[in-house]
Amino acid sequence: MDFFHCISLLEAQDMIVKELTGSVVALEQVPLVDALGRVAAEDVVSAENLPPFSRSTVDGFAVRSADTFGASEAAPSLFTVVGEVLMGKSTGIELAPGQAAAIPTGGMLPVGADAVVMLEYAEQPDPHSLLIAKMIAPRENVIVSGEDIAFGSILLHRGQIITPAHIGVLAASGVTHVPVRQPVKVAIISTGDELVDIDMPVKAGQIRDVNSYALGALFTKWGCRVSPMGIVRDSYEKFYCALLEAVKTCQMVVISGGSSVGARDFTVKAIDGLGAPGVLFHGIAIKPGKPTIFGMVDRTPIFGLPGHPVAAMTVSEQLVKPAVRLLSGQKEIFARRSVPARLTRNVASSPGRDDFVGVRLNRQADGGYQAAPIFGKSGLIRLMAESDGIMHIPSDKSGVYEGETVEILLLNDADEGGRPE
Amino acid sequence: MDFFHCISLLEAQDMIVKELTGSVVALEQVPLVDALGRVAAEDVVSAENLPPFSRSTVDGFAVRSADTFGASEAAPSLFTVVGEVLMGKSTGIELAPGQAAAIPTGGMLPVGADAVVMLEYAEQPDPHSLLIAKMIAPRENVIVSGEDIAFGSILLHRGQIITPAHIGVLAASGVTHVPVRQPVKVAIISTGDELVDIDMPVKAGQIRDVNSYALGALFTKWGCRVSPMGIVRDSYEKFYCALLEAVKTCQMVVISGGSSVGARDFTVKAIDGLGAPGVLFHGIAIKPGKPTIFGMVDRTPIFGLPGHPVAAMTVSEQLVKPAVRLLSGQKEIFARRSVPARLTRNVASSPGRDDFVGVRLNRQADGGYQAAPIFGKSGLIRLMAESDGIMHIPSDKSGVYEGETVEILLLNDADEGGRPE
Repeated sequence: MDFFHCISLLEAQDMIVKELTGSVVALEQVPLVDALGRVAAEDVVSAENLPPFSRSTVDGFAVRSADTFGASEAAPSLFTVVGEVLMGKSTGIELAPGQAAAIPTGGMLPVGADAVVMLEYAEQPDPHSLLIAKMIAPRENVIVSGEDIAFGSILLHRGQIITPAHIGVLAASGVTHVPVRQPVKVAIISTGDELVDIDMPVKAGQIRDVNSYALGALFTKWGCRVSPMGIVRDSYEKFYCALLEAVKTCQMVVISGGSSVGARDFTVKAIDGLGAPGVLFHGIAIKPGKPTIFGMVDRTPIFGLPGHPVAAMTVSEQLVKPAVRLLSGQKEIFARRSVPARLTRNVASSPGRDDFVGVRLNRQADGGYQAAPIFGKSGLIRLMAESDGIMHIPSDKSGVYEGETVEILLLNDADEGGRPE
Repeated sequence: MDFFHCISLLEAQDMIVKELTGSVVALEQVPLVDALGRVAAEDVVSAENLPPFSRSTVDGFAVRSADTFGASEAAPSLFTVVGEVLMGKSTGIELAPGQAAAIPTGGMLPVGADAVVMLEYAEQPDPHSLLIAKMIAPRENVIVSGEDIAFGSILLHRGQIITPAHIGVLAASGVTHVPVRQPVKVAIISTGDELVDIDMPVKAGQIRDVNSYALGALFTKWGCRVSPMGIVRDSYEKFYCALLEAVKTCQMVVISGGSSVGARDFTVKAIDGLGAPGVLFHGIAIKPGKPTIFGMVDRTPIFGLPGHPVAAMTVSEQLVKPAVRLLSGQKEIFARRSVPARLTRNVASSPGRDDFVGVRLNRQADGGYQAAPIFGKSGLIRLMAESDGIMHIPSDKSGVYEGETVEILLLNDADEGGRPE
């Protein structure tokens, strides 16, 4: 299988978008405390003004701002203090001209008042009098009703992943339940006669099933519910039955391929056998990850990933992740956080192929990042855990050079254990 | 409370480090599938070589590399094919000089072989013969036993947050259970006479309890187990009892403060009343977040955060997050993923105070980021959800200028709903 007989990464991504657009998993309502990290299924709109009443943003005195017109150190305005606003209480106070009321931060503005003067600028010759020695603008130190969140404004957009800040905005607006997408249910089938599960003794010639665990963790991180179907060995019939079961019970199927040509042939044959349209591409011009298979059985996408864990994870980031985002109704399908970085050495590549190379990122004195490519024979598992990010060398380049500024896709947020600074 | 009577952010962080160093929550063993996102409690060391046997990285023929010495198009080396290596099987084959064996990708190298020639470079005049027209180096297309992960090497370092790649490395090495730190149990107490829970009707002068939800989500994202203790109102005695209960049952307590001076006085009095050393600082020179309280009751840290959600979340990122990381035994206490960005407009600041301003990030044609500050009256909740990152203006600056390159702390990884590109 020559690279020039493979489809390009962009073609593969376009095909996945075309096949999965419109296929979105069902909606469910969850309590606000369970909404973190979920995908909003609908726009959530504010049913009220926030704040519901005009509030003070400081400790001070509520006044009618017009009463301070012309006030100065030489000629302060004089007010009569007619009462005190208490937190959490509706105030019965109504200010007439020349009147003021004490008010705490967050207190509800009395009727008639339109501004608050801070304690620092108010002098009280006696408890019932107040001198203000500067002019106060209308709305000064006040948040008016609806100024933060207006009735009818959108609190959360369909397709957004819900963050702690969204949770705060929703709580502030009294939203107790949130419409979210159900987690995408993904089956993982491992194939390969050489594989054994991680808790079994390894005999000569055998290796452990890494991909069920590594891919399972990756898909879990992306919000999927993972259904591990174990290792399928020995016969085409057993593999076909496992795949049939997976297609029936899940919304996406990922086959972690045996490394042999025979195992790949099994996968193609079974996908085509299960239903139309069957296999849509087999082989993409990327490294690592060339022997990747993608097909659809009715509306269910099926990926046949390479057996090498590094290749399987690279292809997952490039193809499976966009598919998960499409199925869960996310807006940003291909967005990845990336940073520009200066390369520490030349890296050769082949035109006509998209290359992905793990790098370590180091912060430089000038604030920029430096990217040091991590090399090793294809399939070294250790390399995965040593990378802070991935350098993408596009298919029109024959390499990138030391000192060149390249774009690095970040693998792990600092919160998740990256190695920043 | 003047900014110059507050301690600095750095002093506050140093004090937290000093108080919490050595206080780490207990260890537990979890199955590998449950280890994602947890903090490694011990170094995990490989008990074997990976791969356990020398493997081929291509489909081809295993040979003794010395037998190809001098081979060329003009004078190819001739081999006798003595058998075929099967996947997942120990091979009984032993190569004598001049002999070769067919081998699949991942197959176990026969005794005597030290390299593999790819199918493309091998010609078979008949099934039992093989011509190789180039010289093959020792170890070519072979991963030798232990080359990926050597016996005794560290798979996972104490204090690392476990990523999908770590899960892969652990699976490959047969690690079925992982020693991790228990989640830090954090109590959240909301105080403030004006607060009502989000599912209750809001009367005049009242506002909803945002912080229990927003802070709960933030701490959950950081791996904590959140214990919401609800809204405590009305009396000092009730507040004292709630705090006592929180200190008894949790490893950290966060009080989301009422905005009034009275509520802050309650907090200080209760922390001091519960035990030594009591309140350690009250007021830090940052904006937003000045009226922050920190104390210790025996070995339990207690934070009194400002009532404004934006201030509470800003202080949480700067002080509570490092505390969570210390308690859970993480290595990187202050690391945050940040990017340099060009500022779109001037932002004034006060020397002697660390300012934090929300920004939107936009990707520029040259690959760099542009940061547009989001302004609004202090305490606008909506601003939280509109920020992609936070600009930190250090205390020695009186402002930052349009066009200046500033450092932006990223709030949300693209995976979590940021707005990259």
